[in-house]
Amino acid sequence: MTEFTQINLDKADGIATLTLHRPEKMNAFTHTMMDEMIAAIDDTDADDSVRAVIVTGHGDRAFCAGADLTPEGSDGNVFARHDPVETLSDERVRDGGGRLTLRLFNSQKPLIGACNGVAVGVGATMQLPFDMRLCSDNARFGFVFARRGITPEACSSWFLPRLVGMQTALEWCMTGRIFDAAEAKERGLVRSVHPQGELMDAAIAIAREIADNTSAVSVAMTRAMLWRLSATEHPMMAHRVDSRAIYRLGKSADSKEGVMSFLEKRPPNYPDTVSQNMPDFYPWWDEPDFR
Amino acid sequence: MTEFTQINLDKADGIATLTLHRPEKMNAFTHTMMDEMIAAIDDTDADDSVRAVIVTGHGDRAFCAGADLTPEGSDGNVFARHDPVETLSDERVRDGGGRLTLRLFNSQKPLIGACNGVAVGVGATMQLPFDMRLCSDNARFGFVFARRGITPEACSSWFLPRLVGMQTALEWCMTGRIFDAAEAKERGLVRSVHPQGELMDAAIAIAREIADNTSAVSVAMTRAMLWRLSATEHPMMAHRVDSRAIYRLGKSADSKEGVMSFLEKRPPNYPDTVSQNMPDFYPWWDEPDFR
Amino acid sequence: MTEFTQINLDKADGIATLTLHRPEKMNAFTHTMMDEMIAAIDDTDADDSVRAVIVTGHGDRAFCAGADLTPEGSDGNVFARHDPVETLSDERVRDGGGRLTLRLFNSQKPLIGACNGVAVGVGATMQLPFDMRLCSDNARFGFVFARRGITPEACSSWFLPRLVGMQTALEWCMTGRIFDAAEAKERGLVRSVHPQGELMDAAIAIAREIADNTSAVSVAMTRAMLWRLSATEHPMMAHRVDSRAIYRLGKSADSKEGVMSFLEKRPPNYPDTVSQNMPDFYPWWDEPDFR
Repeated sequence: MTEFTQINLDKADGIATLTLHRPEKMNAFTHTMMDEMIAAIDDTDADDSVRAVIVTGHGDRAFCAGADLTPEGSDGNVFARHDPVETLSDERVRDGGGRLTLRLFNSQKPLIGACNGVAVGVGATMQLPFDMRLCSDNARFGFVFARRGITPEACSSWFLPRLVGMQTALEWCMTGRIFDAAEAKERGLVRSVHPQGELMDAAIAIAREIADNTSAVSVAMTRAMLWRLSATEHPMMAHRVDSRAIYRLGKSADSKEGVMSFLEKRPPNYPDTVSQNMPDFYPWWDEPDFR
Repeated sequence: MTEFTQINLDKADGIATLTLHRPEKMNAFTHTMMDEMIAAIDDTDADDSVRAVIVTGHGDRAFCAGADLTPEGSDGNVFARHDPVETLSDERVRDGGGRLTLRLFNSQKPLIGACNGVAVGVGATMQLPFDMRLCSDNARFGFVFARRGITPEACSSWFLPRLVGMQTALEWCMTGRIFDAAEAKERGLVRSVHPQGELMDAAIAIAREIADNTSAVSVAMTRAMLWRLSATEHPMMAHRVDSRAIYRLGKSADSKEGVMSFLEKRPPNYPDTVSQNMPDFYPWWDEPDFR
Repeated sequence: MTEFTQINLDKADGIATLTLHRPEKMNAFTHTMMDEMIAAIDDTDADDSVRAVIVTGHGDRAFCAGADLTPEGSDGNVFARHDPVETLSDERVRDGGGRLTLRLFNSQKPLIGACNGVAVGVGATMQLPFDMRLCSDNARFGFVFARRGITPEACSSWFLPRLVGMQTALEWCMTGRIFDAAEAKERGLVRSVHPQGELMDAAIAIAREIADNTSAVSVAMTRAMLWRLSATEHPMMAHRVDSRAIYRLGKSADSKEGVMSFLEKRPPNYPDTVSQNMPDFYPWWDEPDFR
């Protein structure tokens, strides 16, 4: 496993925990943190022992206080680190938050957020491609970009309305105001709110439910299908993928085990792996380029 | 009317009731049931006396327990019934649940689900193209595919996030867990929960509200417009259809009756029918092929 | 400023208030009102002193009772005012409600609805492109088109499901029934319900929060990004715009002021304006034509 300096990546019993770890900086985001988070997801995708990934922040105060604007964090400061470039389609113009969220979007493992405190700016937007979001009762969120003279980033204009609808997405991004855990729950940003001391156990319980009961190949397929096919214009696009998936996976060792363990009323023991057994038509899409 | 063996189709006072009917099999889904449900919707679409369709299951225990995996139900077992085919775009590969939901998607009559008990697998996904879903307080739902080594089907990756948002859709499909009527209501899958003995009356009340007050042509147009135009990239696509619809229907006998009955404060008596009076530009779309 | 006859447009302290004003007609919609509302939004977009627009109705009874169907209002009666035209793509066929909502869709200033009473037909659909909707406790709404023999208009098939999900949008449009403020809140159409006497203060408070704390350029960009990029098929489209926006605005005077005022814990004083300082790649889209 890669050596990380601003995050931790721990694995136990099929669950990886990615912890943002800059203790004296409220886990503020830097270019290094972006690189390390992307490397960590490359790792969890490649490691068949990992069935779910929990993303949290170190400490009980902040998940991530946004982009580090101090000189020390300037490697992550998207405002400062670019040389002048001629065209806006230059790779060097790419938004760092978006490079991260596009990688999270393509994760083959479920991503479960355990937001343990303050999450503003990219600290909020990086959570949107997670599959589920839990938070502590002291969590606070802010899509503060309009209060800093910039705009929402990290593809949040695409992700946020899918989670909370247009009205709430517009209100949060246009006012830029900070809101608390209760509002995050009421509006649908987080699925549940927990006392700080119980947050990780709640996240682990969901990860366990997935790890103990489901096929890894099924979950990787499900993740890609829901995020991608829900955004198409007609259900026929889903039907094409569904048909191939049900046909191929219906002949798989995992589907035999799924049915047998169900009929025998015992826990399943799925043999297939994401590294070896994804169906032959996967991926069924062409990933668009940055340009 | 066609003779059915695994469903019933009853009509009274403008309301058709389609009942899944395999009493000793918890109404489990088979290839025959798929064929019969599609034929029933062909029937309700062609019958101008039908103003709304209620879909429910026989008994007070199950709406539909999913695909029948037993030998007796193997005609509906998508895992078993296919011969090897050379290409994944072969028609024989088509997912049976999706063939049904694509037909439901194109219904010209409102579909009102009255989920009277357990609904798992295709028993849950077949409900997603309904326009409204009510359930009994003993209903339970499960998008259990990842627990069987397969994937969500019946175009549910397209339909489910439109009803409950991405976070809930991902949680239900990734964990595959069973959940109850209260959770289905809280997350937006069903519009209302009713005591078992009051479920059908509640569904009938909504069907009556449509049948007694609205134009059949208006409702058929509204159904196609909302399902299809909401998934386009820009509101201009809707404006093109709206403009044609308001222009053409604004000259119709139904719109004259709609305005007159409103001004005269009396119940309307719309003369136009779906079989004879859909506007000349309908359908305005090209339906995509399976491939 | 243009002279208006069926609306009022007032400006104070950075907030414009557009009031539908036909006191004895329940503010019913006419062709003149459509023209004046479009002209008012042209005005608020061009006026850099305007940071947010509140849209409300005169009086304490109605926001807008729908299209004026009386002879006096016939200039707005889309059913009556068209000569026969040869093709449905003729400009004269265009739905008046949609011409308005497409202009609202392109507003560069935040639109905050303060629905002060009855809102039916186009009185309901014109509110959907607002960014936020508040209402009084005596407000009532109705997407009544199917009860008049016509169809939803004003691009509402595109807008409404984005606000309330498919199930509620279908129920409201298929039944055409009138519903109250509490249901509008529960289903997500309005963000909050207020006593009539407190409605405007609540709308002003949100407008003030935007005007006092955010960059006008940031808010105009945010509005276009959320409405447009959320409807694309893949987050990469958002990443392309995000990257250009963060790069260009990251060098702007507003972003310097945003960071400085934050670090100095003082109110911001943004120098940039929508008329002068939108980034060079804006607008990044080609607006589709009516055809």
